[in-house]
Amino acid sequence: MTLLNTSFKTNYLHTYFKTTIVIPDSGKANYKAVWLLHGYTADDTTWIRNVNIEKLADKYDLAIVMPEGRNAFYTDSNFIPYYSFFIKELIPKVQDLLPISSKAEDNYVAGVSMGGYGALKFGLENPGKFSRIAAMSPVADIEHFRNNSKSPMPINTFDTIFDSPKKLHDNQLANILKDVDTTDQKILQLCGDADFMHEDNIVLKGQLTDKFKTNYTWMPVSGDHSWTTWSANIDQVLNWFTK
Amino acid sequence: MTLLNTSFKTNYLHTYFKTTIVIPDSGKANYKAVWLLHGYTADDTTWIRNVNIEKLADKYDLAIVMPEGRNAFYTDSNFIPYYSFFIKELIPKVQDLLPISSKAEDNYVAGVSMGGYGALKFGLENPGKFSRIAAMSPVADIEHFRNNSKSPMPINTFDTIFDSPKKLHDNQLANILKDVDTTDQKILQLCGDADFMHEDNIVLKGQLTDKFKTNYTWMPVSGDHSWTTWSANIDQVLNWFTK
Amino acid sequence: MTLLNTSFKTNYLHTYFKTTIVIPDSGKANYKAVWLLHGYTADDTTWIRNVNIEKLADKYDLAIVMPEGRNAFYTDSNFIPYYSFFIKELIPKVQDLLPISSKAEDNYVAGVSMGGYGALKFGLENPGKFSRIAAMSPVADIEHFRNNSKSPMPINTFDTIFDSPKKLHDNQLANILKDVDTTDQKILQLCGDADFMHEDNIVLKGQLTDKFKTNYTWMPVSGDHSWTTWSANIDQVLNWFTK
Amino acid sequence: MTLLNTSFKTNYLHTYFKTTIVIPDSGKANYKAVWLLHGYTADDTTWIRNVNIEKLADKYDLAIVMPEGRNAFYTDSNFIPYYSFFIKELIPKVQDLLPISSKAEDNYVAGVSMGGYGALKFGLENPGKFSRIAAMSPVADIEHFRNNSKSPMPINTFDTIFDSPKKLHDNQLANILKDVDTTDQKILQLCGDADFMHEDNIVLKGQLTDKFKTNYTWMPVSGDHSWTTWSANIDQVLNWFTK
Repeated sequence: MTLLNTSFKTNYLHTYFKTTIVIPDSGKANYKAVWLLHGYTADDTTWIRNVNIEKLADKYDLAIVMPEGRNAFYTDSNFIPYYSFFIKELIPKVQDLLPISSKAEDNYVAGVSMGGYGALKFGLENPGKFSRIAAMSPVADIEHFRNNSKSPMPINTFDTIFDSPKKLHDNQLANILKDVDTTDQKILQLCGDADFMHEDNIVLKGQLTDKFKTNYTWMPVSGDHSWTTWSANIDQVLNWFTK
Repeated sequence: MTLLNTSFKTNYLHTYFKTTIVIPDSGKANYKAVWLLHGYTADDTTWIRNVNIEKLADKYDLAIVMPEGRNAFYTDSNFIPYYSFFIKELIPKVQDLLPISSKAEDNYVAGVSMGGYGALKFGLENPGKFSRIAAMSPVADIEHFRNNSKSPMPINTFDTIFDSPKKLHDNQLANILKDVDTTDQKILQLCGDADFMHEDNIVLKGQLTDKFKTNYTWMPVSGDHSWTTWSANIDQVLNWFTK
Repeated sequence: MTLLNTSFKTNYLHTYFKTTIVIPDSGKANYKAVWLLHGYTADDTTWIRNVNIEKLADKYDLAIVMPEGRNAFYTDSNFIPYYSFFIKELIPKVQDLLPISSKAEDNYVAGVSMGGYGALKFGLENPGKFSRIAAMSPVADIEHFRNNSKSPMPINTFDTIFDSPKKLHDNQLANILKDVDTTDQKILQLCGDADFMHEDNIVLKGQLTDKFKTNYTWMPVSGDHSWTTWSANIDQVLNWFTK
Repeated sequence: MTLLNTSFKTNYLHTYFKTTIVIPDSGKANYKAVWLLHGYTADDTTWIRNVNIEKLADKYDLAIVMPEGRNAFYTDSNFIPYYSFFIKELIPKVQDLLPISSKAEDNYVAGVSMGGYGALKFGLENPGKFSRIAAMSPVADIEHFRNNSKSPMPINTFDTIFDSPKKLHDNQLANILKDVDTTDQKILQLCGDADFMHEDNIVLKGQLTDKFKTNYTWMPVSGDHSWTTWSANIDQVLNWFTK
């Protein structure tokens, strides 16, 4: 197992960008990879500081790539063009640098909370890059999240990213779903029964089920919106990627 | 010499925040400290990746604290309340954690480019925290910088931070200078003769001279707006702090 | 919670030495501290890569210091004078640098496997520095370990450290125990029931009970000599320190 | 430019092993690589903490790999089988993981002081792996080094590695040179005129000239045995690799 703390200068984000990566020891030239996104308030080290990711990467023989999210909601904004950066710069950079397959069938995207939202958006809009998506306790409805008193994100920060009604509309998962034209991807969703966004997740569950039918899986779990829930279930999520 | 890569969760920035810190070996309980800011496109590791900061910290027996700037222009904005974070959270946190004096007479702030601007703003507005300020090739006039084709910062990113004419006005160094009511601090400024912001620096030099008289020092240097210039002069800058 | 990856040049070990440290956010000037040692084949990052140490440090309001062991068996040898370094250089260095109490009553030493051996040796021989000791699956009998086919340590490496019969004798915990003249310290020992060194631990349990009476605690646990066992029990161990 | 701090578990050294690596941005599938070794008292971060290696890697479009040396003298010993590890485990591991050519013609080995000795030994004994060798202020005569009062290495540490007259004899560069049967490699040597091992370097210069003729280059430099000398000359050394 190799743990890599990487830093490179991006042209899209105009800064040095940190990504924590785990590569198994099985000696493959083209590992299957999970792009594992964190939530609001976290960074590229949060996953490995909360969960033994190396052990899981080894168990499932998966490369796991954990980029900084920079609180950008995995979205292009005036301040941070994160979405474009992720799709156009980060993915090819990492796939060129490390023994990671560039085939969609070998790439999966997952995340928690804001990262669950990001996983769904990146995945659904880029079926040519990702064959599987796992959303853990995703921000299922960004409009509700904006006004939710339990959200840790200040409204004015939110509005800096989603800075017009159109921008908000276009980035709603429900609306993104309408434009999806392939349903060959496999999607997993989970959300703790005590999560403050549980209701929104149930609504999203309905929308995803309608669209993806048997390619969609709901994994029922207990717990709230915290690492207790995510730590308890990430093994199952990674296991699902390998099936 | 101890090198510390630190990460802590901030309440102001809603994320984990990285700061690289160097502490000399002389065993002091209260080191004098330099808060050393980087420019646009850089991060908390940029100074030590470009300059042998440890050697200089040892030479001048100074703690050197190098926080991430997160491209926030060292300014409070809707996206990142960096200024408040820096003054109210970062400084006390680091002074509590490490053997660093909290007296203004023992704390100096310095930076390059966007960090030179930040050093001047943090310093001039907080004489109770910093007794000396060193601005290396600072962004001396943010309005000119906004429109400067040589600036690496996209206008829409700039406008996310300085999002109204009033905000821009209030953050102009020339205007900040008008409100300064103590001139006991010592200020050093340098800017390479081939720097694309050299003219703006000459204007700022005049304003600082008028206000700070003999407490102001202009250090004439050759070079452009790059690490070649800053690497060549940081030793002299740190030396000035200790005089 | 602040995570610090530190590196400083030691005079004892003639190299840069890495220590990973976690400091809670409660703002104390003098935290109680756990010196947490790893086993053979591990390094200063192993604890945080296997267990959510930050969460536990926060839960129990303890500073946790995790130094590299450099496979030195926490012992002075011709190649690495680790014991002297640890007691005479590392402890004062870290206590000077960070808000950590230097009183014995506030300092505890713990470790797994080779680190459990180290914790007992450091603790028992330095009652003026540590008031509590927790040995998790310690190498309870180094002579048995030397010849144990399940040990990952080659005999010639072992013999480089314990390079004479006298050295081996003097470093046997049973012999160290004979010279202990204070029994005010509190000692905790655990060892999984399927551990390949379980029998040796039972013998040591008897020796420690004879000497320390009610100041000694045996924590019965199931499991083998692995992180599965240690991950499952470190919370309980840290909890014991705070009682 | 990507900076990678890597850590992997080695089978040879029975621990996690850290290597700092810099990869240029030119997008090659098979970079030429420099294996850059440090001296006694240093570690995998020493080169980048003393010299702007990233800038040089970019300038010469070279991957630069900087492994920990663990004070092992780049030699197999009872305590650390470093030589075998380096040749049989580290090199293939890194070449498999990163876009680095595995051809001898694309791999160069360099080092300072103890690392200069290591570069010569690794290089001369493995012409199938390295086509060029650069020794900067190498420990040219290990017997003299053993007894040299200016050496920072204690004799008993030295004797743990070179633990018999035969071992010392077999690891003397002069004796290794006798067994070299190919002289197609290109060799560069430098040593500051005020270096405490300058005389030994002059003797080695003669031996290398006799053997390698025009494939050998002596680069005359001023300075002592310190980073001042090495910082001043590493650019020239890397430049020589690319000619």
